[in-house]
Amino acid sequence: MSAPAATGQTPLRVGLLGCGTVGAAVAQALSTRPALYAERVGSPIEVCGIAVRNVDAPRELHAGLSGLLTTDASSVVHGADLVVEVMGGIEPAQSLVRLALEQGKPVVTANKQLIAASGQELVEVARQQATSLDYEAAVAAAVPVLRVVRESLAGDRISSITGIVNGSTNFVLDMVARHGLGFAEAVERAGQLGYLEADPTEDLDGLDAAAKIVILARTAWMVDVGLADVHREGIAHLTDDDFEAAASCGQVIKLVASAWASGDPAHPHVEMAVRPVALGADDPLAQVREGRNGVVIEAESAGLVSLFGPGAGGPETASAVLGDLVNAACRLRQ
Amino acid sequence: MSAPAATGQTPLRVGLLGCGTVGAAVAQALSTRPALYAERVGSPIEVCGIAVRNVDAPRELHAGLSGLLTTDASSVVHGADLVVEVMGGIEPAQSLVRLALEQGKPVVTANKQLIAASGQELVEVARQQATSLDYEAAVAAAVPVLRVVRESLAGDRISSITGIVNGSTNFVLDMVARHGLGFAEAVERAGQLGYLEADPTEDLDGLDAAAKIVILARTAWMVDVGLADVHREGIAHLTDDDFEAAASCGQVIKLVASAWASGDPAHPHVEMAVRPVALGADDPLAQVREGRNGVVIEAESAGLVSLFGPGAGGPETASAVLGDLVNAACRLRQ
Repeated sequence: MSAPAATGQTPLRVGLLGCGTVGAAVAQALSTRPALYAERVGSPIEVCGIAVRNVDAPRELHAGLSGLLTTDASSVVHGADLVVEVMGGIEPAQSLVRLALEQGKPVVTANKQLIAASGQELVEVARQQATSLDYEAAVAAAVPVLRVVRESLAGDRISSITGIVNGSTNFVLDMVARHGLGFAEAVERAGQLGYLEADPTEDLDGLDAAAKIVILARTAWMVDVGLADVHREGIAHLTDDDFEAAASCGQVIKLVASAWASGDPAHPHVEMAVRPVALGADDPLAQVREGRNGVVIEAESAGLVSLFGPGAGGPETASAVLGDLVNAACRLRQ
Repeated sequence: MSAPAATGQTPLRVGLLGCGTVGAAVAQALSTRPALYAERVGSPIEVCGIAVRNVDAPRELHAGLSGLLTTDASSVVHGADLVVEVMGGIEPAQSLVRLALEQGKPVVTANKQLIAASGQELVEVARQQATSLDYEAAVAAAVPVLRVVRESLAGDRISSITGIVNGSTNFVLDMVARHGLGFAEAVERAGQLGYLEADPTEDLDGLDAAAKIVILARTAWMVDVGLADVHREGIAHLTDDDFEAAASCGQVIKLVASAWASGDPAHPHVEMAVRPVALGADDPLAQVREGRNGVVIEAESAGLVSLFGPGAGGPETASAVLGDLVNAACRLRQ
């Protein structure tokens, strides 16, 4: 793609699986900031192939990148030193991620469904092959919560994680609370603005938030939990009366995902829930607006640590993917 | 200290330099959560020595740890696999950190003065010896801002960092803004509660905040900046009239540290300032209360990412030290 930088070193070849909003943003960043990546990694980063379902679908990619599009995803994996998976969904993403890991290649993914379903198994493949699988972007996009839970708090005991991790439903709830829309109208508006999928069940029923809290709980406590362990209640059944009742008490309804540990701190029992909660206006999560996300982590020594930021969006999610990519690339180049 | 855990592996010996509130909290955590550290690191962690100026000074340490106190700091470094420096100040901390690094031993420190003064030089020693120097706790204690700037945003371009990074002055300003105390009275109260040193100049004149914004700027942009480059104005000269004027506009005065990049993104010009700023009540930093800290990072792709948490305190600062310690120990055991 881009000419090797002045370092003269062999470029590190990145294979991109998927070229939707996130994939396109990753490709564009890599091609528009070559000096930054070359400096941070110690050698240039080059996109060597972009696997898509349909090469001719309309995309905003500059010419140098369009020429890399292919429907042959395996060949992209085979030709890469490092693989970025941003296709979403379980298959073929799972097989391709596994293929890359089995070849000892680091993988970075933004795919929460895949990680919630098979993250532990795939991490084990990565471990066996002495490589890595990173997925910061799978939870709360640009909010760096996985790295903070895994690394910053690695010497502490986390007691609970509470957050707004679904930007779509937060957008809907914020439209109702701050802009006075009826609930049905807010859902419609969110759909028009692209905040909700054509089938919004995944968001409105709390399935998306549940996948994220499962990933967070596994990261915090290294426990074997899954989607079926989440006490889950979505927001689809809420009525305008519910919102009015909350507002009359100075409260705001948010879809809150939470996970908490109890019992023996060395082998804690972990519970998880996703449900609409009426929060006091002073609650830090009550102030999370539009499509933003926020997470409050409570730890024994650190106390309360909170993180806020964009929970969706192409460039925002790409930022988290690129952070994982640079860190993985630096490890490869060590 | 503690008996080797069931793993049967050789314990990793941690030498502790300093045993004030942070050092004692680090030692207590290591001795009360041995299973957690053994599991995360892959071998038990053992405190092998604690260097102090006066062995007989009153301290709350359990008996097993008290027996490790010594005034011979070099012997603690020599006997350790990994060194934690929490003495504060420049000397003898600097010589001891350098000694440890020259022996190829990873060092974790909470010492902002040292890192602001000689961080780049010491990191270079660490690099030459293929070891590491980590200092998350030196900036904003339990707020994981250095790791987020360095790793989470490693693939992005940071444009600015704005924060409340001095808990003492924030406590004073919060007492004035929310509890109606006069400024002089709030300073006195903060002193009584241990939020300010006997000589509060370091905090009130913005020197402490300046050291932290220098460390943040270097981390974000890899630039050679120092304390003299910070446009600095403290809060000591503020009067009750200033606070009343701000309050009458619905604003709140905070001591804000900031750093921002301009010009060529590949080789940005970086400016830094510490000064009292009147913030609108809606500003996320306006809502940082008591001794807490908060930092808002703006990046090209990620947009606005904000982090909040305890900016001081023994266990809170120890949490950040222990996070760095576990990560460094894992690298040693790889």
